[in-house]
Amino acid sequence: MAQPLTMSQLDTLTEKYVRASYNDLYTFLSLPNNSRIDGHIQPNIDWLQKAFTQRGFSVEVLPTKGKNPLVFAEHKADKTPAGKLKTLLFYMHFDGQPVQPADWQQASPFTPVLKAKGENGTWQPIPWEKLQTTYNRTDGSREWRIFGRSSSDDKGPIVMLLTALTALQQEHIPIPYNIKVILDSEEEVGSPHLADAVGQYKNKLQADFMMIMDGGRHLSNQPTLIYGARGIASVTLTTYGPRGAQHSGHYGNYAPNPALRLTQLLGSMKDEDGRVTIPGYYDGITIDASVARILAAVPDDPALIQQTIGVTVPDKVGRTYQEALQYPTLNIRGLSSAHVGVQAGTIIPDKAIAELDLRLVPESDPQRLIRLIRQHIEQKGYHIIDHEPTDADRLQYPKLIQMRAAVGSLPFRTEFGGLEDQWLTQAMKRAFGREPIKIRTMGGTVPIAPFIRTLNIPAIHVPMVNLDNNQHAANENLRLGNYLEGIKTWLAIFTE
Amino acid sequence: MAQPLTMSQLDTLTEKYVRASYNDLYTFLSLPNNSRIDGHIQPNIDWLQKAFTQRGFSVEVLPTKGKNPLVFAEHKADKTPAGKLKTLLFYMHFDGQPVQPADWQQASPFTPVLKAKGENGTWQPIPWEKLQTTYNRTDGSREWRIFGRSSSDDKGPIVMLLTALTALQQEHIPIPYNIKVILDSEEEVGSPHLADAVGQYKNKLQADFMMIMDGGRHLSNQPTLIYGARGIASVTLTTYGPRGAQHSGHYGNYAPNPALRLTQLLGSMKDEDGRVTIPGYYDGITIDASVARILAAVPDDPALIQQTIGVTVPDKVGRTYQEALQYPTLNIRGLSSAHVGVQAGTIIPDKAIAELDLRLVPESDPQRLIRLIRQHIEQKGYHIIDHEPTDADRLQYPKLIQMRAAVGSLPFRTEFGGLEDQWLTQAMKRAFGREPIKIRTMGGTVPIAPFIRTLNIPAIHVPMVNLDNNQHAANENLRLGNYLEGIKTWLAIFTE
Repeated sequence: MAQPLTMSQLDTLTEKYVRASYNDLYTFLSLPNNSRIDGHIQPNIDWLQKAFTQRGFSVEVLPTKGKNPLVFAEHKADKTPAGKLKTLLFYMHFDGQPVQPADWQQASPFTPVLKAKGENGTWQPIPWEKLQTTYNRTDGSREWRIFGRSSSDDKGPIVMLLTALTALQQEHIPIPYNIKVILDSEEEVGSPHLADAVGQYKNKLQADFMMIMDGGRHLSNQPTLIYGARGIASVTLTTYGPRGAQHSGHYGNYAPNPALRLTQLLGSMKDEDGRVTIPGYYDGITIDASVARILAAVPDDPALIQQTIGVTVPDKVGRTYQEALQYPTLNIRGLSSAHVGVQAGTIIPDKAIAELDLRLVPESDPQRLIRLIRQHIEQKGYHIIDHEPTDADRLQYPKLIQMRAAVGSLPFRTEFGGLEDQWLTQAMKRAFGREPIKIRTMGGTVPIAPFIRTLNIPAIHVPMVNLDNNQHAANENLRLGNYLEGIKTWLAIFTE
Repeated sequence: MAQPLTMSQLDTLTEKYVRASYNDLYTFLSLPNNSRIDGHIQPNIDWLQKAFTQRGFSVEVLPTKGKNPLVFAEHKADKTPAGKLKTLLFYMHFDGQPVQPADWQQASPFTPVLKAKGENGTWQPIPWEKLQTTYNRTDGSREWRIFGRSSSDDKGPIVMLLTALTALQQEHIPIPYNIKVILDSEEEVGSPHLADAVGQYKNKLQADFMMIMDGGRHLSNQPTLIYGARGIASVTLTTYGPRGAQHSGHYGNYAPNPALRLTQLLGSMKDEDGRVTIPGYYDGITIDASVARILAAVPDDPALIQQTIGVTVPDKVGRTYQEALQYPTLNIRGLSSAHVGVQAGTIIPDKAIAELDLRLVPESDPQRLIRLIRQHIEQKGYHIIDHEPTDADRLQYPKLIQMRAAVGSLPFRTEFGGLEDQWLTQAMKRAFGREPIKIRTMGGTVPIAPFIRTLNIPAIHVPMVNLDNNQHAANENLRLGNYLEGIKTWLAIFTE
């Protein structure tokens, strides 16, 4: 194996091969990729199959119990006997969020557009061809952005990988690892069949270390590694008032109001500072000195976060933003009873509904949290049902509530300091000249717990794109500087 | 003036003239009457003008500041010099609630259908002509119902009046009162211009006593008088979270949740039994022994009420249903934050909205109640604004809320025992052989406070229709027995 490439060599290599990659990026982003729409996914599979095959990978399409299969690409290590080398498993996805074309400031979310920021601060289209001619490191072009669905989430990182592979192939630089890439086609709908598939293809997926190339870097847009993600569960609560909405004059002060009941119940679950007051909810979580040090090392700017989301005083679950992410949440994500605005009637509603989501951390078993919520509700005098109340229910129980709960992705966390952490940190330092930002737990959810649990391997998240990429919304975009640094990251990983 | 007609004479007279009235009822119910739809109201005015003129009334159309005028019909007392006789003012309305024809079990809400209850308990159409041939007091036909918009609310009572007038005219029975009838065309949209019009036409409307012929009898369907109605005010509260909905993973435990804030605030306004806990909210209201006696005399069946609305344990604002109506309400009539059901996203909502209605009693000045709510909100640490928050608002105030309030109809109450009460009670006793049910305050709202305040006269509500008439909903109907007893009631009033 050759001497690891230096930062300067990585930059040179990236810049040498990036121009030829824009055509791939353009073509790939032009393929619609809503997994719920028939006909969207297959052209993407065909494209991926060709792209990885050209780069010396063997590619398989792995059927799941769902509508859309997974794509699996594998590359046996160059030169050295494969058995002795480590195997790296990469997770990415090529499906995208649904689009509302009318909300996009371009002809189509599937016709990529290059834009530069105009003097008035808005994004103005510039010719795609400028990527070939004017690009260099000092002309401001690193701030340009490529707009299109999945530019950041998550096709961009796939093309960064393909570009790095081309560079290594053309330069005859061997990769001293076995590489496995699993490409998900239903990530944006929660990867409902992934856990099953990981079980089914366990032997094929077996690896020493997993990396997830999805999501955005730290808000500062500095190179970032993420060691854990929260999981998610959901709870739906429905309280009941009179059978059918009743005239608020005839029955006001007499028929119990389900919206009042629900507000009192929900309000009792947290204190004024957003901390869950249900005993035991945060059990098992400790922020000791070493964890506190890890969290404090993240260069968050509270003022910037607060300004970004328009909040003056944050909740006090943790002392800092990073600390807050180490705890499970209990979040009201939707609330409804009868109507508001012009549709509002003078009635006592028949029911009131709350949708809650619970972000999970490894210490918080979702079944335990759901049980605690259940007990809290029962202690408030409710009879919990799993159906719309019958007349008999209504006559028997003064306080009725329907509760439904579901567990989605589970959380994961890879502890700091392991071999893989050291190895990956070293690669990032070589590429960028300094330690990456290391985030112990990201707030969101990735569907990779099945890999960690089934394959029993550590995993680290290597986000490459700008956080302000409008992921999941209109005008999703990828910052050109992040695209270049992403290619460099892949090169650094493969040569570490 | 002749000897008052006996109960038996009133029945005979009613039955003699009722058959000829069905044609009027059919024609009048066939005229669409949504005051918000151009062209609906004028044909009704034309019809009323003709009907009252035929019965010896002078009719005027009184323009208001709104789109639709009032109809005013006046009849000078027969025989005796008008100046010495009392003047009775009757309020009714001829506009109707909007209709959703698809929800009606008949061809059109404006094609009246006669129905009898089938053996399976559902309403089955029978020929309209049966009203002419088979009707008598013992064949069950009093349980038949006439289905059509405004059959009960409030065209039915107008046709009952017209029928009574025809009977008295044909029988040459003099009416010893001056009669004024004011017919509202915008009651179902809250009579927004009525107060102004009453001021404008004060002299024309001047009377000694006002009766409101609208709404349903007591649930027992026994003859009923109502001495007061609650008023109404509304409050809209909007709490704010992050600027724009935020990812519940990225910001859960950090960005304050506006739905949680709203639930805690609303939940703090009442206790578990539905009693307002804001100090002073119920000030001025006393249920002394004499009031308690009046309320207890209403033959309510709590079990029946509770079964009707599917509630086991009512709120405890009053000790009984009638007591509950003597207090103002604070009712959550609508609640919304982000989405529930399939639309629910994993987000922290940007805002949460509650719509409240406050039913008013004479002791509860709406401005005072609104001020108390405002103070309560401020004591909970909120900064109250009257607009969507600016970035500056967000940075300055940790807890922001928008509050808007509006006062609608005011309450009224005519105290028991006055001359008019005695006179009307006597007429009802003559017609039905016993004391009517006397309700001190009905829960709902009628737009007649302007009459009472401007004309400074007592008012009593004389409901005639069955309470289960589906008023405001699809399949509105009028029980035939109530139609007959309504005609009799008018005859008794005019001959008392």
